[in-house]
Amino acid sequence: MTERVVLAYSGGLDTSVAIGWIAEETGAEVIAVAVDVGQGGEDLDVIRKRAIACGAVEAEVADAKDEFAEEYCLPAIQANALYMDRYPLVSALSRPAIVKHLVAAARKHGADTVAHGCTGKGNDQVRFEAGISSLAPGLRCIAPVRDYAMTRDKAIAFCEANNLPIATTKKSPYSIDQNVFGRAVETGFLEDIWNAPIEDIYEYTQDPAAPREADEVVITFKQGVPVAIDGQEVTVLEAIQQLNTRAGAQGIGRIDMVEDRLVGIKSREIYEAPGAIALITAHQELESVTVERELARYKRQVEQRWGELVYDGLWFSPLKRALDGFIAEANSHVSGDIRMTLHGGRAVVSGRRSDESLYDFNLATYDTGDSFDQSMSKGFIELFGMSSKIAAKRDLEQ
Amino acid sequence: MTERVVLAYSGGLDTSVAIGWIAEETGAEVIAVAVDVGQGGEDLDVIRKRAIACGAVEAEVADAKDEFAEEYCLPAIQANALYMDRYPLVSALSRPAIVKHLVAAARKHGADTVAHGCTGKGNDQVRFEAGISSLAPGLRCIAPVRDYAMTRDKAIAFCEANNLPIATTKKSPYSIDQNVFGRAVETGFLEDIWNAPIEDIYEYTQDPAAPREADEVVITFKQGVPVAIDGQEVTVLEAIQQLNTRAGAQGIGRIDMVEDRLVGIKSREIYEAPGAIALITAHQELESVTVERELARYKRQVEQRWGELVYDGLWFSPLKRALDGFIAEANSHVSGDIRMTLHGGRAVVSGRRSDESLYDFNLATYDTGDSFDQSMSKGFIELFGMSSKIAAKRDLEQ
Amino acid sequence: MTERVVLAYSGGLDTSVAIGWIAEETGAEVIAVAVDVGQGGEDLDVIRKRAIACGAVEAEVADAKDEFAEEYCLPAIQANALYMDRYPLVSALSRPAIVKHLVAAARKHGADTVAHGCTGKGNDQVRFEAGISSLAPGLRCIAPVRDYAMTRDKAIAFCEANNLPIATTKKSPYSIDQNVFGRAVETGFLEDIWNAPIEDIYEYTQDPAAPREADEVVITFKQGVPVAIDGQEVTVLEAIQQLNTRAGAQGIGRIDMVEDRLVGIKSREIYEAPGAIALITAHQELESVTVERELARYKRQVEQRWGELVYDGLWFSPLKRALDGFIAEANSHVSGDIRMTLHGGRAVVSGRRSDESLYDFNLATYDTGDSFDQSMSKGFIELFGMSSKIAAKRDLEQ
Amino acid sequence: MTERVVLAYSGGLDTSVAIGWIAEETGAEVIAVAVDVGQGGEDLDVIRKRAIACGAVEAEVADAKDEFAEEYCLPAIQANALYMDRYPLVSALSRPAIVKHLVAAARKHGADTVAHGCTGKGNDQVRFEAGISSLAPGLRCIAPVRDYAMTRDKAIAFCEANNLPIATTKKSPYSIDQNVFGRAVETGFLEDIWNAPIEDIYEYTQDPAAPREADEVVITFKQGVPVAIDGQEVTVLEAIQQLNTRAGAQGIGRIDMVEDRLVGIKSREIYEAPGAIALITAHQELESVTVERELARYKRQVEQRWGELVYDGLWFSPLKRALDGFIAEANSHVSGDIRMTLHGGRAVVSGRRSDESLYDFNLATYDTGDSFDQSMSKGFIELFGMSSKIAAKRDLEQ
Repeated sequence: MTERVVLAYSGGLDTSVAIGWIAEETGAEVIAVAVDVGQGGEDLDVIRKRAIACGAVEAEVADAKDEFAEEYCLPAIQANALYMDRYPLVSALSRPAIVKHLVAAARKHGADTVAHGCTGKGNDQVRFEAGISSLAPGLRCIAPVRDYAMTRDKAIAFCEANNLPIATTKKSPYSIDQNVFGRAVETGFLEDIWNAPIEDIYEYTQDPAAPREADEVVITFKQGVPVAIDGQEVTVLEAIQQLNTRAGAQGIGRIDMVEDRLVGIKSREIYEAPGAIALITAHQELESVTVERELARYKRQVEQRWGELVYDGLWFSPLKRALDGFIAEANSHVSGDIRMTLHGGRAVVSGRRSDESLYDFNLATYDTGDSFDQSMSKGFIELFGMSSKIAAKRDLEQ
Repeated sequence: MTERVVLAYSGGLDTSVAIGWIAEETGAEVIAVAVDVGQGGEDLDVIRKRAIACGAVEAEVADAKDEFAEEYCLPAIQANALYMDRYPLVSALSRPAIVKHLVAAARKHGADTVAHGCTGKGNDQVRFEAGISSLAPGLRCIAPVRDYAMTRDKAIAFCEANNLPIATTKKSPYSIDQNVFGRAVETGFLEDIWNAPIEDIYEYTQDPAAPREADEVVITFKQGVPVAIDGQEVTVLEAIQQLNTRAGAQGIGRIDMVEDRLVGIKSREIYEAPGAIALITAHQELESVTVERELARYKRQVEQRWGELVYDGLWFSPLKRALDGFIAEANSHVSGDIRMTLHGGRAVVSGRRSDESLYDFNLATYDTGDSFDQSMSKGFIELFGMSSKIAAKRDLEQ
Repeated sequence: MTERVVLAYSGGLDTSVAIGWIAEETGAEVIAVAVDVGQGGEDLDVIRKRAIACGAVEAEVADAKDEFAEEYCLPAIQANALYMDRYPLVSALSRPAIVKHLVAAARKHGADTVAHGCTGKGNDQVRFEAGISSLAPGLRCIAPVRDYAMTRDKAIAFCEANNLPIATTKKSPYSIDQNVFGRAVETGFLEDIWNAPIEDIYEYTQDPAAPREADEVVITFKQGVPVAIDGQEVTVLEAIQQLNTRAGAQGIGRIDMVEDRLVGIKSREIYEAPGAIALITAHQELESVTVERELARYKRQVEQRWGELVYDGLWFSPLKRALDGFIAEANSHVSGDIRMTLHGGRAVVSGRRSDESLYDFNLATYDTGDSFDQSMSKGFIELFGMSSKIAAKRDLEQ
Repeated sequence: MTERVVLAYSGGLDTSVAIGWIAEETGAEVIAVAVDVGQGGEDLDVIRKRAIACGAVEAEVADAKDEFAEEYCLPAIQANALYMDRYPLVSALSRPAIVKHLVAAARKHGADTVAHGCTGKGNDQVRFEAGISSLAPGLRCIAPVRDYAMTRDKAIAFCEANNLPIATTKKSPYSIDQNVFGRAVETGFLEDIWNAPIEDIYEYTQDPAAPREADEVVITFKQGVPVAIDGQEVTVLEAIQQLNTRAGAQGIGRIDMVEDRLVGIKSREIYEAPGAIALITAHQELESVTVERELARYKRQVEQRWGELVYDGLWFSPLKRALDGFIAEANSHVSGDIRMTLHGGRAVVSGRRSDESLYDFNLATYDTGDSFDQSMSKGFIELFGMSSKIAAKRDLEQ
């Protein structure tokens, strides 16, 4: 029986050429699978037909936008996940979502190999392959660009030689990955880390410095899930989309950073994630109001590790699962409203309101109504500082 | 011999009244000590004379601005210290600086007690008393407001009855603490956490939304110490002051948060820290470029604990000292230039340049010159994901 | 209406006297509540009658042995909880178990105060009062020994003056707390930390140095729960009891340590916990076989924090609850058999067997059947060490 | 010019054959380097001569026993380093010590490649190669067993074909690595993890169950360094050696575990480390007495990460260096005497004595002399539990 390979298909030049390339290299039949995680662009049906035209024996397209928002972006919001305190894991979140569909297709079509279009020096190859080997340890992975040296020049030549129905126009200077949670841009001139980004590279966000009216928004969460915007119920997907639009219009969510890749090198990355940043900002603030201090302090460490695991491609790992247990419990009281002003590149919280609030006016106030018993403090300070004081006494004597 | 009490003296109503109040309550002689940590306001000599006029047997004033910047603010910059990921520890840093002078004065003047003006429900009482008991375990601490129920009304009455030379005008609606590293404001109407702050409460920062030209600045660090701004050498104090001015003019460094106090309650706090935020932002970015990945990942945890310890008043504790050892080592290569655009409330890094950079163009680039051996990746991914894959195999079988 | 106080009653001199003492001090009616957590000693009914004889208006006794084992000891086993890497939290676990019964009794009898017999310098007062304030924030707590200066001498005098039916023999030199999970002993001569314990103080364990036959035991766990011993089904309580007997007979589980109390001082403590140590040893080993590496590494940190929280009296805290979520997930595959030799004070694992094992003979062996692809290693090492290597290159150049 | 390869030479069959094998495979000249880290066995000069006889162009031997003890074992003692809470990193510590000598030899002899005898599925290959690439990023690494498929059978054939002066007797059933800090044994029948070890495999330790007299020892530390045993000054090397003998005679330090290797698999390992375990036990206890609580709690986390880094081969990494800064500071007061009873497989601390002790009899005692102010406790408990209590109140209302 002919072997079958499931290919993660984007509809672009590289993966279109890969269909035939893999067939030639391996003799296998190629099944193209395109997953819509909100990357925009072409119609899914057009993409499906192109795959067939390029030689795929089967082509499947899946609208996974809601699934992506609910099962991948939402946990990241609840974890306030920011790799290196900045990057909301845009691409890192989409890879396991795509992997799930690739594995399902491999099972359905009896494929024993999965192929993807990543190079050999990025994080995404790890995310694909570690994900696949966790969901289906028996599947083999190949990456034509990395494993069969399929360079862009060779791809164009292959395309022209085989009359594939794809434009082989001059390559855009930008290498882009985008989905509903954000957009990543790399480009040659930014590889000099002293160079500033130019306005031209942004798409999800307007120039934050352009004059415009501020936009006030109220986001309602229920147990850590965004459920309404300005009082209107929304799905998680709609929450992200609406805030992409509104926060994006205010220039919010641009990130320019030097990042530690899993493969050991530092790289310069530009991201835009207006909805993600707005939602995480609001969620974080609601946690400040509703989560107890020691839990909040510990959760920061859990959040960091969660973000590193997901960045490193270990979405389907046992540790990720156990951290999810912690995070779910920690979100059980994160319900309420956050009012934010979106303006000039900043999402600034200006009000919080929650039935689950731990903020107690009568304990906090210095005005009439103060119910805090200040006489407790002397004893507290004495014993809280005791171990340090005893050490100090010893150290001073020496 | 008459007992002596050293009082942390600010020159304001409360501590001026406290001089006589403590004398009455305890029969002791009071020595007033004012420490200038950049809080601005009155001349130190005026303050000194007022203390004497209010009944102090001695009054000392100390210009500790450089000391505060170098020994307290600088470690916080090197630790990227932001309590709850936001608050640069403004007041928390000044307390141990003041404590050092109080203890020195107590030794010099033979005092066995130190007094401070804090209430019994805040963090500062802990910072004063835990600090004092670490530097001088034998000293006793008193807080007239907390321990002798010295309310504001009683203070005004005392002031008038004793003809003290202080204006007892109607209290400002704002409770303020400020120093060169920032400014903290609390006020009644913000105790409703749904209320937004008003422009009126800010002093270190202009309205970020006001139209103005952007300001570009280059900050140079040497082993984590800011040593030059736009190529001009600066002391740490000057760096903070200049960036207070320039970042403040752009509305940078406003913080509005619900905060977990050490005494167990949540409180609403407004901070302004333009210089602190600008410096920490730049320092953090330079670390991204110069600090190795695993060290950087671990340092985030150390930073969090460092910030918590300092917030909690444990500046002079053994753990703080050991974390300092880690942070110093981690800063040993944090040298180079960071270019930032200050504008519209945001300090945005646009360029980094360092002789100690770990960013390697030839490893990062996808263009000509690429020296990364992509064939290494397959083996890496296989073994990196191995433990997770083996677990997945087991879990799938069940 | 007369106020009512629920008293944690042990049947001993101190709490027997406290019944009348509290009544005199507060004018309240006292309800005595004794909770059996396996401390052994007198019959519960005898204790109940003594409380009445001493003046309690009501007396309740509860057999909470199974509840204690399942809801308090079991989580500690699953967390491999050892405070300071040594102490299996014997007393710390029993306090929340008792607290639950005290609070239930207070509700049932309309009491607004709970009393306990702890002093003011130990951990147990915190465990009682923090527990009570979490389960019933409205209840007040009193501790006659601490709050009403009820010393032992005064207690004996009170006892004799009131003809209470308790022997007031000379105090034992030992201060003891015990339950099914272990036994704690403090005594005057051990307050000199250079002194060694004497054989006399032990009750749960035989002299480890005495010659005897080794005892081999097989413990079966199911999802982290001990379910069988030598193939015979057991409850958690039975597992602890049987291993107390068998491991105790071999001198296992003696702990002599200098411990960091929550109140800030160091104290010398002697513990015996044969069953606890045997079960944790076995559980830990089964985790080594069944838990994936990264989860196992992270779990150690979680275990430490869990142990500190419980030691510190925060059993009913939000963070404890969230850590429980993590630990439960981590135990979901901890099933299988551990064979141990109990002998000479040591519980030594000699065999492990599990359907959930992640140990794969074919990957581990160097003999025929080896399925590990060694060619993967070169790439792994290259990229695993890459960030460190790049840093080394920089550092060597300087 | 002929290329040169520095080979980590043990004197055994594999590395003796590797001399000629590498020469054949690469055409290079081989320089053999043997490093004595206390592995015992043959005379260094005999080994040196054998290398020459096997074809090495140069052979160097280094007595690195003191260096190994002071620069590698000592930091592990100060870190109480036990991988997976059990394994004192015996082999993991020796690899960087050997690497340093290999790199020095490569520089001296102008070699551009370093070779070692490790297989491709263990940790040691990583420790060698990550270490070499950190100390000398330009050096290439080869491993004949892994890279040139030099199996044992082929090695024997090569040996006989070339008349190499090594006995090719039937392979011992045991694979052994040993140095002054301990001994590691792997063997076929133990690859079944249900099988118990047999007495036959141990060399550093006697049977713990054999009847014998107990041995009492007093170990003196100065700032975390063992400086005397029973009052006699010792070097670190002597401390380890003497305790290897005395603790080994009592059967102390046997470890039988299932271990998580860096390459992702679990393996069964048997270790003996009598001196290491005795020293770490004593050091840990002295820390309990001399290190302040919060520092001690945090140090446990640092210790775990330190152990993982060293196990994972990252001895020469930036994070390891920064953790060393923390550990050094934490050891600055770890001075004093620990008395231990060595007997029946157990090293049991029975006394501690230190001028730097933080244990304060007057605070700890319940007898006359008690200086702890119990009235402080009420306030402490109230505020310590406050955040949890406020959360409980909210949770109960729902």
